[in-house]
Amino acid sequence: MFKVDLNCDMGESFGTYRMGRDEEILNYVSSVNIACGFHAGDPSTMRKTVKLALEKNVGIGAHPGFQDLVGFGRREMSLTPKEISDLVLYQIGALSAFVKAEGGKLAHVKPHGALYNMAAKNAALSDAIAEAVYQVDPELILFGLAGSELINSGEKIGLHTASEVFSDRTYQQDGSLTPRKDADALITDPKLAVGQVLKMVLENKVKTAQGTDFIIQADTVCIHGDGEHAVEVAQFISAGLEQSGVKVSKISR
Amino acid sequence: MFKVDLNCDMGESFGTYRMGRDEEILNYVSSVNIACGFHAGDPSTMRKTVKLALEKNVGIGAHPGFQDLVGFGRREMSLTPKEISDLVLYQIGALSAFVKAEGGKLAHVKPHGALYNMAAKNAALSDAIAEAVYQVDPELILFGLAGSELINSGEKIGLHTASEVFSDRTYQQDGSLTPRKDADALITDPKLAVGQVLKMVLENKVKTAQGTDFIIQADTVCIHGDGEHAVEVAQFISAGLEQSGVKVSKISR
Amino acid sequence: MFKVDLNCDMGESFGTYRMGRDEEILNYVSSVNIACGFHAGDPSTMRKTVKLALEKNVGIGAHPGFQDLVGFGRREMSLTPKEISDLVLYQIGALSAFVKAEGGKLAHVKPHGALYNMAAKNAALSDAIAEAVYQVDPELILFGLAGSELINSGEKIGLHTASEVFSDRTYQQDGSLTPRKDADALITDPKLAVGQVLKMVLENKVKTAQGTDFIIQADTVCIHGDGEHAVEVAQFISAGLEQSGVKVSKISR
Amino acid sequence: MFKVDLNCDMGESFGTYRMGRDEEILNYVSSVNIACGFHAGDPSTMRKTVKLALEKNVGIGAHPGFQDLVGFGRREMSLTPKEISDLVLYQIGALSAFVKAEGGKLAHVKPHGALYNMAAKNAALSDAIAEAVYQVDPELILFGLAGSELINSGEKIGLHTASEVFSDRTYQQDGSLTPRKDADALITDPKLAVGQVLKMVLENKVKTAQGTDFIIQADTVCIHGDGEHAVEVAQFISAGLEQSGVKVSKISR
Repeated sequence: MFKVDLNCDMGESFGTYRMGRDEEILNYVSSVNIACGFHAGDPSTMRKTVKLALEKNVGIGAHPGFQDLVGFGRREMSLTPKEISDLVLYQIGALSAFVKAEGGKLAHVKPHGALYNMAAKNAALSDAIAEAVYQVDPELILFGLAGSELINSGEKIGLHTASEVFSDRTYQQDGSLTPRKDADALITDPKLAVGQVLKMVLENKVKTAQGTDFIIQADTVCIHGDGEHAVEVAQFISAGLEQSGVKVSKISR
Repeated sequence: MFKVDLNCDMGESFGTYRMGRDEEILNYVSSVNIACGFHAGDPSTMRKTVKLALEKNVGIGAHPGFQDLVGFGRREMSLTPKEISDLVLYQIGALSAFVKAEGGKLAHVKPHGALYNMAAKNAALSDAIAEAVYQVDPELILFGLAGSELINSGEKIGLHTASEVFSDRTYQQDGSLTPRKDADALITDPKLAVGQVLKMVLENKVKTAQGTDFIIQADTVCIHGDGEHAVEVAQFISAGLEQSGVKVSKISR
Repeated sequence: MFKVDLNCDMGESFGTYRMGRDEEILNYVSSVNIACGFHAGDPSTMRKTVKLALEKNVGIGAHPGFQDLVGFGRREMSLTPKEISDLVLYQIGALSAFVKAEGGKLAHVKPHGALYNMAAKNAALSDAIAEAVYQVDPELILFGLAGSELINSGEKIGLHTASEVFSDRTYQQDGSLTPRKDADALITDPKLAVGQVLKMVLENKVKTAQGTDFIIQADTVCIHGDGEHAVEVAQFISAGLEQSGVKVSKISR
Repeated sequence: MFKVDLNCDMGESFGTYRMGRDEEILNYVSSVNIACGFHAGDPSTMRKTVKLALEKNVGIGAHPGFQDLVGFGRREMSLTPKEISDLVLYQIGALSAFVKAEGGKLAHVKPHGALYNMAAKNAALSDAIAEAVYQVDPELILFGLAGSELINSGEKIGLHTASEVFSDRTYQQDGSLTPRKDADALITDPKLAVGQVLKMVLENKVKTAQGTDFIIQADTVCIHGDGEHAVEVAQFISAGLEQSGVKVSKISR
């Protein structure tokens, strides 16, 4: 039986500012990554999002990011590995309290934005993140880009990891994502997106922009919660996978 | 055997800004309340302070406050009970992660500054705080002003509470603290301060500014960590209590 | 010739968070109050909003608020008059730089949210605000609730003031706004809203909830920029006034 | 007559957190760079520092930095030139308001920390900063590292610039500062520090770590306000220069 996790970032509203269609997207994903108040989110939004996620029985993850609200955590910041570790630990702890208070259990951690991208390539940073996750709870699953340093660091320290792939991004022959500035970076046809995920899950391969196949581990697929058609795309991908015999299911250890 | 807890606020440095003589004060107190990044403190300061506290084997508490760094959490803010509850839960969680990562266990929660003062008088706020503490861990001890609404709320929900008294503040005949603006608000002679604590611990009474005795519960004494002579005063009070047969000891449940 | 100013809060987006339909509303108002980065807004949003306002030739005002982004400046904070004065001065200065850089001139100042409400009733705070405005530029016009302490403070220090009235709120017989929690607080029928403004502008009176007339000065009308029908309401009020011979025009000194 | 400016960062306290011995240092410098609330400083600290500076009749500059209080603006952040420009404009405006309110006139702008260092090497960023300064007031003097892109950008746009040199840092034969991690990066002997400045001012040359002379423009010397002996060092350098016939004097246009 084939299965894959669909994950989406959530709880990115802040105070009176609204972002994302969390309640609707929750019907089509199996895991959510909840912002922890640094790049987005605030205590009351976190509590509300945790409650919603528990009602839907999806896997709940912490989504720590840089303390850069105005930049939404998307701008690189030069922090030491020690600072990164403390930053991540703080945010995991904060979210954990809400999950515990609402009767659930934190399942995973996925870094956000620039932190995610930097941790994909920089082993010192990814080690710092993996260590923070392990220290707070070695049962937590570490989500990272498939083939990244973050996955390496997680495995090295003894964490269960989930390799993340993208349905709407093309890949280069070295397995990296085509940079967003390139013309062919995005897959906008939902059918092609589903096809890419199916190939990843069923064959552990992705067809690259150069036409070659690249071996890839696909444990979880990133679903975007913003964008005009976010809900429809999430629904389409979820349905497409199920119809092809791939069960959408949160990661189990 | 008589005993009492001495507690002190700690970890109030922020980034490159230094505050308090935490390492020295730690030699004379039995519990510490660690700032959680909202009114003071930051992730790396929290980690460092937790480590220090664990080395000294003192009781470790979360010290949540308003999100007002420039006002150091001392300015009242009009938050709803729901917002207060979420604010407190977030901060307890964040600190818990560091305590857990360093191999310890969070023992108590003491609100900071304006939040502490508002929760002493406003039952809706104190209920919100007590509920947040209970939800994250019913084993946590809630520190509050002796005779306050916060102590009432803690007992009502089933938390173990610790009634806090002051060695360096005078009391009014209704048991309230003499306002700081009054001439006789402060006890500056350390001998008188020790005497006030001894009477509280041994007789459960405090001599008020009006000359009457007021019955008071003294589980923990607030020690100030800033001020020019903070370390010397802490040492003097600790020694004075021990010499009079009162053991300085963290709260046990 | 009768005339009145229509003002609207603007530039309340923050980073990737969007708020308000600024560009559309700008077609129907004669003054805008631009958030200054404390309760809402950020440097790039401020610049963009200033540019838009200059293109439309509306009066540009600073809209300073409490430093409480998560509460959108709507929660009261206990600041000293000195702190309030410095807070206001800082924000006026920040916005002024963008206005100057884009070739315009700051015209007015209107405090936001809880700061506006507190300054309406507390003379020490309103004096502090008026002083800050006067110090940075005595030519600035101070916007405040009609009949408020803020208007008094502005006149006392020698500022030109603009008394603000509401089209969509009912008034009590003492001239105060009916509290929002009351059933009859809001005027939802745009025709009645226009009628209330016309009576204010043409007769300097408002019909109160008790049926009596109250004398009121109406220099500027607050138009709300959020809400589902904000643009339509703004358009309706603007057109209704013009059709009744009241020119919509920014405040001139 | 030879002359040079001595400048020092000031107003870096934040709320209850104290930093620097501003009042004492002010006796020995001719210009100050005042933090603007992003990497350090707050509205009330800014006002207080502006007042002090005006009493001493020193040149007053804005000292804008990244919005990273916990990192004190010392950590690089990936902002676009547009974002940098807006960030700088905002902070200059905020400080200007206090200078104007206190009856003075802003004289210069010197970027802080990571922003200063990035602007020294990255022409797109330095152009953005120079443009922001020029837009708010073309009379402002732009302080930057001698020989840096920031000085180039300032001159290109038509600003008066001041090339900054260091008394306590050694230089490489390409004119760059020896990296702090290198053993010979710092000049700790105040006599050697004075000697380096004298050679720069009198001969427009600096002896590099390699023994060669490098031509350098020395309009202003950076004096550090923190550190145990900051005041004594400032006094020593100021006196040493005056005794050698170099007048310590703020930059004039």
